[in-house]
Amino acid sequence: MFKKEEIESYLKLAISLAEKGRGYTKTNPLVGCVIVKDKKIIATGYHKRYGDIHAEVAAIKKVKDKNLLKGASLFVTLEPCCHYGKTPPCTKAIIESGIKEVYCGIYDPNPIVNKKGVAILKENNIKVYVGFLEAEIKRQNEVYFKYVKEKKPFVIAKVAITLDGKMATLDGDSQWITDERLRKEANRLRCYCDAVLCGINTIIKDNPLLTCRVLKNKKIKKIILDPYLKIEKDFNIFKEDSVIIFYHKEEKRKIKELEKIGVELIRLELKDDFFDWQAILAKLYEKEIASLLIEGGAKTISSALKAKVVDKIFLFYAPKIMGKGLAFANGLHYNLKNLLKIKDFKINCFKEGFIFEGYPVYV
Amino acid sequence: MFKKEEIESYLKLAISLAEKGRGYTKTNPLVGCVIVKDKKIIATGYHKRYGDIHAEVAAIKKVKDKNLLKGASLFVTLEPCCHYGKTPPCTKAIIESGIKEVYCGIYDPNPIVNKKGVAILKENNIKVYVGFLEAEIKRQNEVYFKYVKEKKPFVIAKVAITLDGKMATLDGDSQWITDERLRKEANRLRCYCDAVLCGINTIIKDNPLLTCRVLKNKKIKKIILDPYLKIEKDFNIFKEDSVIIFYHKEEKRKIKELEKIGVELIRLELKDDFFDWQAILAKLYEKEIASLLIEGGAKTISSALKAKVVDKIFLFYAPKIMGKGLAFANGLHYNLKNLLKIKDFKINCFKEGFIFEGYPVYV
Repeated sequence: MFKKEEIESYLKLAISLAEKGRGYTKTNPLVGCVIVKDKKIIATGYHKRYGDIHAEVAAIKKVKDKNLLKGASLFVTLEPCCHYGKTPPCTKAIIESGIKEVYCGIYDPNPIVNKKGVAILKENNIKVYVGFLEAEIKRQNEVYFKYVKEKKPFVIAKVAITLDGKMATLDGDSQWITDERLRKEANRLRCYCDAVLCGINTIIKDNPLLTCRVLKNKKIKKIILDPYLKIEKDFNIFKEDSVIIFYHKEEKRKIKELEKIGVELIRLELKDDFFDWQAILAKLYEKEIASLLIEGGAKTISSALKAKVVDKIFLFYAPKIMGKGLAFANGLHYNLKNLLKIKDFKINCFKEGFIFEGYPVYV
Repeated sequence: MFKKEEIESYLKLAISLAEKGRGYTKTNPLVGCVIVKDKKIIATGYHKRYGDIHAEVAAIKKVKDKNLLKGASLFVTLEPCCHYGKTPPCTKAIIESGIKEVYCGIYDPNPIVNKKGVAILKENNIKVYVGFLEAEIKRQNEVYFKYVKEKKPFVIAKVAITLDGKMATLDGDSQWITDERLRKEANRLRCYCDAVLCGINTIIKDNPLLTCRVLKNKKIKKIILDPYLKIEKDFNIFKEDSVIIFYHKEEKRKIKELEKIGVELIRLELKDDFFDWQAILAKLYEKEIASLLIEGGAKTISSALKAKVVDKIFLFYAPKIMGKGLAFANGLHYNLKNLLKIKDFKINCFKEGFIFEGYPVYV
């Protein structure tokens, strides 16, 4: 057996490889793999995109001389799968390869795999060790954990604000609070998600494209909350990728018009003039959307925070002060003893501003 | 002559020594000094507190065997002084010591010393080199530069806010937005200044002590803007250290009462129901206050930013969202193209929050 530091060092490499799949794996986890023989790395692999081969198989395939695999050690961030999905089970490939031992970061939380993958390997006389860098790997796969365990998309809220928390002027002008560099990072965040969601007011005000520009060949689903179907079919949003509209009021003519250009429409009830976020998330889960990015505006983001559905929040700060303006959390109201806390926060600094990210703690 | 990297490395040590005087040097600069002989550091010194010996003399004094100083090299962040102030000139001590060469970070901006200190050393056959780590040393002495060159105190504004820029609830409750750890850092910032300023509303609302707790033996002047003399003599503010009140309305009885407990009162005219900041700063310059910290409230800070007198701003962020509340820059109003930019910003992260600091760019 390897020493803990060696195992962690191989798994750290596997984690960084796994990261390369971010934005492409949809409902699948991010997984990285390293194969070691005689203390040398003989192959690496990661899960590149949904439907593609898994990290373990990618690494095994890279070894040309199959004899090298006999007696080798495999390091993988997540428990190998043992079921036929889009591809054959990884356990099969590992067993057939002659690999003698497997180090897994964590068990797969998916009940189809959970502990079963490890059990099959053990039954086939492969030594298996589980439980390394668990916090880091779980965080890397926070989307997958939420999706698989709670059967809901992982919800991220993102706003671009000034130092004094304003996302737009009093006239609603918000283009642009942050500069190009930070907007590129915001687009990267969008690229990492399966779907992006906006309220109809933002769509009407800014007429955005809501496309992915930073990641190549990345398509995204665009979700619009439009209770009274105020949207028009010539809006920019319909130019690329597919659109889903949540609506309430039956506007037969508008519905027909939108369906004709390929828009998917989902009718939901209204509660206090807003949709029930749990109903929205249930519908998006059905559509296999694992990660959802809420981009605005103030009303939509406030309502999502109020409904306690935001799992993670990103605040893109411009190093500027606005004074009077539209505060991003305008629709919320907490007293001093019960402010909405953001835990495990991290700050990413740029010359042009900084990005705050963290996890709301609801009480 | 030493190589540039060696000079910078000695001066970096001198800068870090100089930093130890922060909070105690009043109208004097922060200065650090290192003496090197045969490539070995034989002594170090820094200016500890206003009125005390200067860095160069402190270092020279530490060398017991005075023969060691002959032919030695002296590294000092700021040009040695050449005038009799609270202490004899440093140039005299250097010349008498037998030191052969002096490396200065920057020239002293004070006209009494500027380039004259260097000239005197050169006249006495000491080699002098000037101009190393200039940006860093100027920044370390930004207070001194402002005070000496512009004959005004360096003005710092500080607020504790939530992520959405709120400094108090709608009821004015602000105790506390940030937690103890960040409040300790805020107190450290106060300790670094010569005076702290608050508007009367904050004094009435919070009845603060406004004392220095983090630095030992540090006294601070407390400045209150109280146009209509609403203050009462039993407020906490009068318990420690000295208080200066700027007022407008002649309230003979109150004035007599306050003067009796040792409060200094300065009468100023009002313009649009507020004092002229330039008049306040001129008065504080007369009182030899080199650095002024404005701590609140929203009205006072907004008016100082509006008057373009804030040189540096510190935002202490709690990782929390308030929603509706009192925004710290409430009294300001910029349009999207002309937001108040903060340049050269830095972020200091703690587990309990983060501190943003930077320099407003007025247009």
